[in-house]
Amino acid sequence: MIESTMMDFPLVLPHILERTRHLFGEVEVVSVLPDHSHHRYHYRDFYDRTLRLANALSALGLHSGDRVATLMWNHYVHLESYFAIPSAGFVLHTLNLRLHPEDIAYLIHHADDQVVIVDDILLPLWQKVAPLVSIKTVVVVSWTGSPIPDGAINYETWIHGYGTDFSYPAILETAAAGMCYTSGTTGKPKGVVYSHRALILQALSVGLGAVLSITPQDTVCPIVPMFHINAWGIPVLSAMVGARLVFPGPYLGPAQLLQLFSEEQVTKAEGIPTIWMSVLQEYEKSPEAWDLSLLKEIGSGGAPVPESLIQSYDAHDIRLLQGFGMTETAGVATFSVLQNTLTSESLATQYAYRAKAGMPIPLAETRIVSLDGDQAVLPQDNQAIGELQVRGPFVARSYYNRPDTQGNWTEDGWFRTGDVAAIDSKGYVRIVDRTKDLIKSGGEWISSVDLENALMAHPGVKEAAVIGVPHPKWQERPIAAVVLKDNAHVAESELVRFISDRFPKWWLPDRIIFLPELPKTSTGKFLKTALREQFAVNQEGSQPK
Amino acid sequence: MIESTMMDFPLVLPHILERTRHLFGEVEVVSVLPDHSHHRYHYRDFYDRTLRLANALSALGLHSGDRVATLMWNHYVHLESYFAIPSAGFVLHTLNLRLHPEDIAYLIHHADDQVVIVDDILLPLWQKVAPLVSIKTVVVVSWTGSPIPDGAINYETWIHGYGTDFSYPAILETAAAGMCYTSGTTGKPKGVVYSHRALILQALSVGLGAVLSITPQDTVCPIVPMFHINAWGIPVLSAMVGARLVFPGPYLGPAQLLQLFSEEQVTKAEGIPTIWMSVLQEYEKSPEAWDLSLLKEIGSGGAPVPESLIQSYDAHDIRLLQGFGMTETAGVATFSVLQNTLTSESLATQYAYRAKAGMPIPLAETRIVSLDGDQAVLPQDNQAIGELQVRGPFVARSYYNRPDTQGNWTEDGWFRTGDVAAIDSKGYVRIVDRTKDLIKSGGEWISSVDLENALMAHPGVKEAAVIGVPHPKWQERPIAAVVLKDNAHVAESELVRFISDRFPKWWLPDRIIFLPELPKTSTGKFLKTALREQFAVNQEGSQPK
Repeated sequence: MIESTMMDFPLVLPHILERTRHLFGEVEVVSVLPDHSHHRYHYRDFYDRTLRLANALSALGLHSGDRVATLMWNHYVHLESYFAIPSAGFVLHTLNLRLHPEDIAYLIHHADDQVVIVDDILLPLWQKVAPLVSIKTVVVVSWTGSPIPDGAINYETWIHGYGTDFSYPAILETAAAGMCYTSGTTGKPKGVVYSHRALILQALSVGLGAVLSITPQDTVCPIVPMFHINAWGIPVLSAMVGARLVFPGPYLGPAQLLQLFSEEQVTKAEGIPTIWMSVLQEYEKSPEAWDLSLLKEIGSGGAPVPESLIQSYDAHDIRLLQGFGMTETAGVATFSVLQNTLTSESLATQYAYRAKAGMPIPLAETRIVSLDGDQAVLPQDNQAIGELQVRGPFVARSYYNRPDTQGNWTEDGWFRTGDVAAIDSKGYVRIVDRTKDLIKSGGEWISSVDLENALMAHPGVKEAAVIGVPHPKWQERPIAAVVLKDNAHVAESELVRFISDRFPKWWLPDRIIFLPELPKTSTGKFLKTALREQFAVNQEGSQPK
Repeated sequence: MIESTMMDFPLVLPHILERTRHLFGEVEVVSVLPDHSHHRYHYRDFYDRTLRLANALSALGLHSGDRVATLMWNHYVHLESYFAIPSAGFVLHTLNLRLHPEDIAYLIHHADDQVVIVDDILLPLWQKVAPLVSIKTVVVVSWTGSPIPDGAINYETWIHGYGTDFSYPAILETAAAGMCYTSGTTGKPKGVVYSHRALILQALSVGLGAVLSITPQDTVCPIVPMFHINAWGIPVLSAMVGARLVFPGPYLGPAQLLQLFSEEQVTKAEGIPTIWMSVLQEYEKSPEAWDLSLLKEIGSGGAPVPESLIQSYDAHDIRLLQGFGMTETAGVATFSVLQNTLTSESLATQYAYRAKAGMPIPLAETRIVSLDGDQAVLPQDNQAIGELQVRGPFVARSYYNRPDTQGNWTEDGWFRTGDVAAIDSKGYVRIVDRTKDLIKSGGEWISSVDLENALMAHPGVKEAAVIGVPHPKWQERPIAAVVLKDNAHVAESELVRFISDRFPKWWLPDRIIFLPELPKTSTGKFLKTALREQFAVNQEGSQPK
């Protein structure tokens, strides 16, 4: 046996923090503040303030591994928290500010948070949470000058009581660095505890030229909230490569974002599809109003992107690239870039690939497994559909303190995403549906997502959700809930005719119900459980063949 | 204390190999063969053959960690060895085919190689090595059809005796995967044993958009030999991201490379400065003869690149990017890309930065330390010069089986590169000289490299090497050995005048000696030890102030 002669050098966040000091002191970090002004400082200032915060936190008498929560928008203080908390040996727990106060209180209890750092403009929310929890230390970032609650600490005063020399504790790369909870549509949210190693490997993998390709010349705008899965690794990656960062603060309206992109010469931005749809609509109203000449690439994730959106952005010389990821994958798991062999294919083929969830990024692995309970691994033939499973060094192996949830992992150690997908011969993943939303009719699978997309392509349809309802003969049958656009008049028969060319007859919904609006989750997804409760009446009828 | 909930997923080469199968089966790998034809196959074939080789090697009865050597040019069989040997639990030892047979024999002895895989066109070299070693298994890759030596195995016949199903042994990410020896100018070569982890982290870091940025759309030509520091990570990285690979085989002449770039639509290529100088000269003879419209970026390493070369390539719309690395850093350690703040600077400033060795790539750290023995870490002020030291997860902590060489590491665990450098406020490293080549005159340092570059800028000078010779009063004084271009006539006084504006008077060489050629190492570097022996006569004289 022979041993390798390489250094034992851990992958930990202090390495990145020190890197910003040594290399990127003069590179700018811009944040939109609540008063709409743009705060500017440099990584040099970021470094100094982050070490002050690390000292301040250490002086609280916390224990190594204690959780420090944040309830903040995207801005430089959140960036400081991203690095100071784990570099001081604690664990960053990012709280989702869109949740109900009771849910936030549940998360604080479950994670046993010792400290919370909160934007003063979120104090109205925090004050509903506070009576429900017994958190020791509340730190308020004062943006508006409004009074800070009794017993709370002012962030600026606090960190300026400490110096910029800090001795990092010894940190193993497998040590906990961050924590994020899923925003599940059913049951209590489940937490994932990220290691330093996972965060750095995720940043390296998404930073590849083959994935997001953030460079030192880029100005990056993470629109994806920093409370949402590490903002897909963008903050850590940007600090690692010295990209200029532009944080939108609380202002995520399409005109506000377009103004930010124009004024701050943003080259790359990351957000969810609804953001990119609204930004496109706003832009096309008056393209001459904005200067997007430097905006070259936008990343989209969180939900599938229709081909038409990719095409629309292409027409403006902006490349929309989409990926797929989950809280449990610490960020991006698959990403859709064109393989070498696809560059000579027709544009139509290329768009079809770009509309998929994409290939697993390096270090991630994907497979699909039979839905029939035998756990057979299915072929990559673009036909077979099965549960999408992932593994890799930035994938969770369990939820925090939830032994009841080990069923989300297979016996051979893969994470069960709960999504149904097909994989083609080039390894591109196409998400077909959520496991729970797939409809089994007469022993065959029907994709609710495919039906919804077809319905939403009708010019009169604003939103559509398809659910399976129990059926005595066929087990389940699809029915559709549709919201029409204002002033649109569309008959059920017309809608069925509109989609009937694209599907076998037995896929077509038995009923289309018109509703004024659809129930949704806090993150804007259709709440199908509510629809099922409402419409899950047994139906008589036949399944057309 | 809280534990992270991430999977224990090792960074090992079988992950990359399986990735090529699942994603990149249809992507091409092209190799120039000894008969100048282009061999083509796909990663699918690469995968199958690599597993056959893994099976064949495993059947030899080797022990885990045993060394398997290669003596090959850059081509697809070498790529198969890159993955099969470590994936089967053995250690790839790449032998430098430019070394003297006795030196190769020394390396085989020192590494205790059990198997060697050799190109048949290198058999004349091998047959000088063979009598000096007692290697068990010799495998010959038959390109020319010439007879294979008695007792040797034919590679093709051999691997086709085995199947394409292979069970990987359990491999720790810290396990040995590869081995490479330095080509030092003094003393015996020293070996570094790379771990799987180091090779994968190196590939991830150089693959970043911020570094080499190899994408699935690229066609990459690694001109840097695969026997030289893992070909800077290009083969592993290309397989990881699905880049099309084009191997030049034994043909590294400038016209041959230009033809290869044109015919195979190469987009990125990596090589040493002398390659890029000769390619440029050849190209400028008849630019219309070649189609380099797709060649966008070339990487250079191994020696500093003059600004003028970068400018010349820019004029042809080819971006030359340079880096610095060593056997001991498993590939690239620093890389020169422009930081955000430099993009608005003058072109002259930008070129000055691009001519530096660059910033440490992510996961690497650099510092300079006083040459005066007190080991003080020096400031990043672009003025202070000191020994360049590096550390990181792909940096060696020792040499293999050479306890006598621990002086190459500092007590606090940094690798002493033996290079002298300055670092500026943005963290860009500028290599000033080798520690051993720096000249100390009257207590002050003189850079032999700076003097050489200035001399070589004279139109009549082909090559110049500057050495320090002992001096009774000033300790050392510089003298220059110069080779003139054919038919050039340049007087010593003219050369001194030519460079006198750029340096303080006391830097100017006391003597310029004109030689017909300069002694060189096997890798083309000036062999200054030989010059010193020849010219190290004590000189009388004064040091001008």
